[in-house]
Amino acid sequence: MILEKLNAPSDVKKLNKAELSALAEEMRQEIVSVASNNGGHLSSNLGVLETTVALYKTFDFPTDKLIFDVGHQCYAHKILSGRREGFKTIRTAGGLSGFPDKDESEFDVFTTGHAGNSIALGLGLCAARDRNKEDYYVITVVGDGALVNGLNLEAINASAEKPKKFIVVLNDNGMSISRNSNGFYNFISKATIKKGYVKNKNAVKKIFGNSFIVVFFRKIRDFFKRLINKGAYFERFGFKYVGVVDGNDLKETTKVLERVKSVADYKAVFLHLKTTKGKGLQKAEERADLYHSVGKNLKLACSDDYSLGRVLSELIDKDNRIMAITAGMKDGTGLNYLDKTHPDHLIDVGIAEEYAATFAAGMAKGGLKPVVAIYSTFLQRAYDEIMQDVCLQNLPVIFCVDRAGFTGEDGKTHQGLFDLSYTLHIPNMTVIAITSKQELKAAIEYAVSLNSPVCIRYSKSCADSLYFADYKDNRWQVVKDGTDLTVIAVGKNALNLALSFSENYAKSVKVVSARVIKPLDEETLRAISTPVITIEENVVSGGFGTAVAAFYAENSPRRVYTLGVKDKFIKHGSIDGQLIENGFTTENLTDIADKLLK
Amino acid sequence: MILEKLNAPSDVKKLNKAELSALAEEMRQEIVSVASNNGGHLSSNLGVLETTVALYKTFDFPTDKLIFDVGHQCYAHKILSGRREGFKTIRTAGGLSGFPDKDESEFDVFTTGHAGNSIALGLGLCAARDRNKEDYYVITVVGDGALVNGLNLEAINASAEKPKKFIVVLNDNGMSISRNSNGFYNFISKATIKKGYVKNKNAVKKIFGNSFIVVFFRKIRDFFKRLINKGAYFERFGFKYVGVVDGNDLKETTKVLERVKSVADYKAVFLHLKTTKGKGLQKAEERADLYHSVGKNLKLACSDDYSLGRVLSELIDKDNRIMAITAGMKDGTGLNYLDKTHPDHLIDVGIAEEYAATFAAGMAKGGLKPVVAIYSTFLQRAYDEIMQDVCLQNLPVIFCVDRAGFTGEDGKTHQGLFDLSYTLHIPNMTVIAITSKQELKAAIEYAVSLNSPVCIRYSKSCADSLYFADYKDNRWQVVKDGTDLTVIAVGKNALNLALSFSENYAKSVKVVSARVIKPLDEETLRAISTPVITIEENVVSGGFGTAVAAFYAENSPRRVYTLGVKDKFIKHGSIDGQLIENGFTTENLTDIADKLLK
Repeated sequence: MILEKLNAPSDVKKLNKAELSALAEEMRQEIVSVASNNGGHLSSNLGVLETTVALYKTFDFPTDKLIFDVGHQCYAHKILSGRREGFKTIRTAGGLSGFPDKDESEFDVFTTGHAGNSIALGLGLCAARDRNKEDYYVITVVGDGALVNGLNLEAINASAEKPKKFIVVLNDNGMSISRNSNGFYNFISKATIKKGYVKNKNAVKKIFGNSFIVVFFRKIRDFFKRLINKGAYFERFGFKYVGVVDGNDLKETTKVLERVKSVADYKAVFLHLKTTKGKGLQKAEERADLYHSVGKNLKLACSDDYSLGRVLSELIDKDNRIMAITAGMKDGTGLNYLDKTHPDHLIDVGIAEEYAATFAAGMAKGGLKPVVAIYSTFLQRAYDEIMQDVCLQNLPVIFCVDRAGFTGEDGKTHQGLFDLSYTLHIPNMTVIAITSKQELKAAIEYAVSLNSPVCIRYSKSCADSLYFADYKDNRWQVVKDGTDLTVIAVGKNALNLALSFSENYAKSVKVVSARVIKPLDEETLRAISTPVITIEENVVSGGFGTAVAAFYAENSPRRVYTLGVKDKFIKHGSIDGQLIENGFTTENLTDIADKLLK
Repeated sequence: MILEKLNAPSDVKKLNKAELSALAEEMRQEIVSVASNNGGHLSSNLGVLETTVALYKTFDFPTDKLIFDVGHQCYAHKILSGRREGFKTIRTAGGLSGFPDKDESEFDVFTTGHAGNSIALGLGLCAARDRNKEDYYVITVVGDGALVNGLNLEAINASAEKPKKFIVVLNDNGMSISRNSNGFYNFISKATIKKGYVKNKNAVKKIFGNSFIVVFFRKIRDFFKRLINKGAYFERFGFKYVGVVDGNDLKETTKVLERVKSVADYKAVFLHLKTTKGKGLQKAEERADLYHSVGKNLKLACSDDYSLGRVLSELIDKDNRIMAITAGMKDGTGLNYLDKTHPDHLIDVGIAEEYAATFAAGMAKGGLKPVVAIYSTFLQRAYDEIMQDVCLQNLPVIFCVDRAGFTGEDGKTHQGLFDLSYTLHIPNMTVIAITSKQELKAAIEYAVSLNSPVCIRYSKSCADSLYFADYKDNRWQVVKDGTDLTVIAVGKNALNLALSFSENYAKSVKVVSARVIKPLDEETLRAISTPVITIEENVVSGGFGTAVAAFYAENSPRRVYTLGVKDKFIKHGSIDGQLIENGFTTENLTDIADKLLK
């Protein structure tokens, strides 16, 4: 095995063409095997494999800097950057992250996970490099879905002059997480006319020789060229455009990269590669969207635990104004169900969370009832839009905040631990945390009835009804009565924990499920006369517990302990492990309770 | 006067060309006169005047919907939409808002103020209109600076098919708030070749008649046409491109708009107008940037109260790694000073707050010390980037959060009342609130020494040193000792209020200036044994006071009253008026204190 003989990342540079091909094949087996064991992002990592090998053949990492946009397509990069052994542990607690992580290796320049930041990060790095008179290449690899994110578009636009030794590699696989259909993509993905252009050039030469008319035609040809190969467009933005190249053709890509490298010595390059998502694994090639992210044994990730698509489908039957919107997370949020039942009520705007929120605001103003389903961590991108375009207008947009709380394997960038802190303080917003899948429908119906902005948050895995009740107002549910201590829980895991603690604790514990977190149920709060523990899968700061503590501090001071995530980012691992590590245990609650009641 | 004879907005449609011109001139006088009395946005409102009159001549508002991006260029729109009398009160307490406000008039479809949302809002509105089988035009007017904001770029890109009766009017005046230089602008602003194209077409016809070669040339011509008039570009994004038209030429613009209206019946239109910012007022035409926003008597807004540019200039002399970055707010933040002293240390990225933050992160990773100066309300747009690209990487980016707290006349969209709530909960972030201009330099020096992410917030108007002390650590300043009650103040206005309250209150009041808000100065908090009042110009939820309340609730419960902005958006008015209306008065503090000490 060639892979075993690679001691240093630079060893890739010594391999000949045949060895490189064999290496790629070995890596493909390894990626499928590890993804099968650990789950992970499959299709995109198979697609970008040859490109990654070619990049390692051409450049000197980590002296040169390689930034993957989003970052889930970094598996081959991890294997080649001295983490081959560790790769087997990817996405497991204590093992490698499934995303680039600056704390894991100097080959990972940034810890990334959210789409759209790579070109801006790369330009910043180049600016520093050039000021410091350092000399290295900065290369960003951007999946096509991420290219059209507003942040990347801002970066492409940022300056008409781009730095030298800056290379944007567009990994164009014809789709974002789900399928893509937008203007830029439409613009860029027209099949290359490069071959046709060459043919025409020769034909012209054959017919007219080198006469005056040739000069005329050369001018036209130059215009044609600029038009046809998109060069005109990218050159206005300071890039030399090179493409389209088959990024799964290792030989061709290596050759082109060598050329790109020398071009980059005097001008930034935009390299357009076409790749096949899922390359080399037939079922993944055929349904790259389904195989985007897989569970163990390549089990397809079934994310429709909450049946959001089904729930909305039922509601749309009754209220035609309801529209579902997502930002590249159709499968993950379960909205794909609507493709079958109400395709004209489903809009996937691609990885453009800001647009999703503001577009929804426009729709709501026009009399529709948009439901925007986006993961907690990605909805952060739309914070300003939620405030300015939805809440300031007091428009009835419902945000289904999926993957709220600990999310397990995907790591620091993907934990949903901030949404309470970034939504609770926005005027006109109602915030709900459901505890079971049965509650989702009731919560959405309640949200529709409010006719104002609502966030409904729920955790990654769902539960059957814990203590189901309809949503009629913001009143909380007293799930269990008690006299010495009160635990107020937000969401499924918190409520489970509160209940099991209350059953085992020596003193009498009242358990409350805080379903509508904002506005606070002040009546229930006033009726509590004991010390209080709040539990929420969110950072403590700016969350639910601090609101409860502030309420009591003003009205009737008492001890309140806020159990949540301390002021830090959370590593990947299992959700259970994350809960334990962060003190979401009956043992820790017992300690806290003992202190409060002392 | 024609203006006086206009009873209904639709009366504009009855005017002939000469009357329209006279009307525009009357409105120009009115705008200059009112801006001179009340202060306000001048240059852009003069520039877009004729365009607005032409829009009212052509369309039927409010049946048709008119959305101004950013919205500060809405003065002519306000005058024509039945608010001529009210216009004299613009930007004063109880008077008209300087921005579109949905609560003020049905002609203002949305309450706007942040850049970049108009195309997305318009597309959402069109989607609702078409589903509801309604029939009206949706027109968005976008200043060129706002066009390249990521949210607008996402919206332009969102779908390759755009709705009918949707018109984007680009009001291209060659600058954003400060001057613009970016790829898209470079691309779009090349002088039109429309006339040249027409000439060429005729020349070809003259020479070749209608023969075979003409067909050949027609094909080439079509390519030329697509290339040259940018139509090719916009058509990929679903727009019919029309331009470039002189938007200050009322006759021409009216004529073009009539044509655009009929084109829009079958296809979305992107209408490119060139206008002159400050049109008709010589000094404003010459220095449109300076006259962007003026004070009373057209006094130039001197926003460099804090001398941020001077401070940075001094620091750069000592530390060459310091770089200043802003997002279209060079003048407002006082960074324009660096244009004179250190132009190569100043980067204005245009209205692209997200890019500013992420670009700064890249720079910091490369060893520079970026200082990003953006107003509190606009920095919201970069919330996710601050968290993911700066704080998760723990990079030394310093955010100078200008216009934090009440900002007075600019209204709901411009108040800086959320930055504490959206920054305090981000791990690795240090948050500082300075109370005087002397503290700015000390705070930045301290921030540089921390070598990690820092936000420094300060209010719109500065003060001389209240109680100046260096920043060496996160310890707070006990400004005045007392035994019965403690007031902890955040920032200048809060500290002034706390001091004047303490001097007049019947009992002994300790006054603390909380300079470093995060991390909390727990030592000082522990040393306090009295009830506590916190004061901050920020929403209460998720702010400083709730953190203090939560600290005490866990450690030593007591009464804590959090004075801040209740859960609502704040209207325009004077800053003093806003402070009074929101209970930042000694009278209110007296009431609160009486209750706490009861």
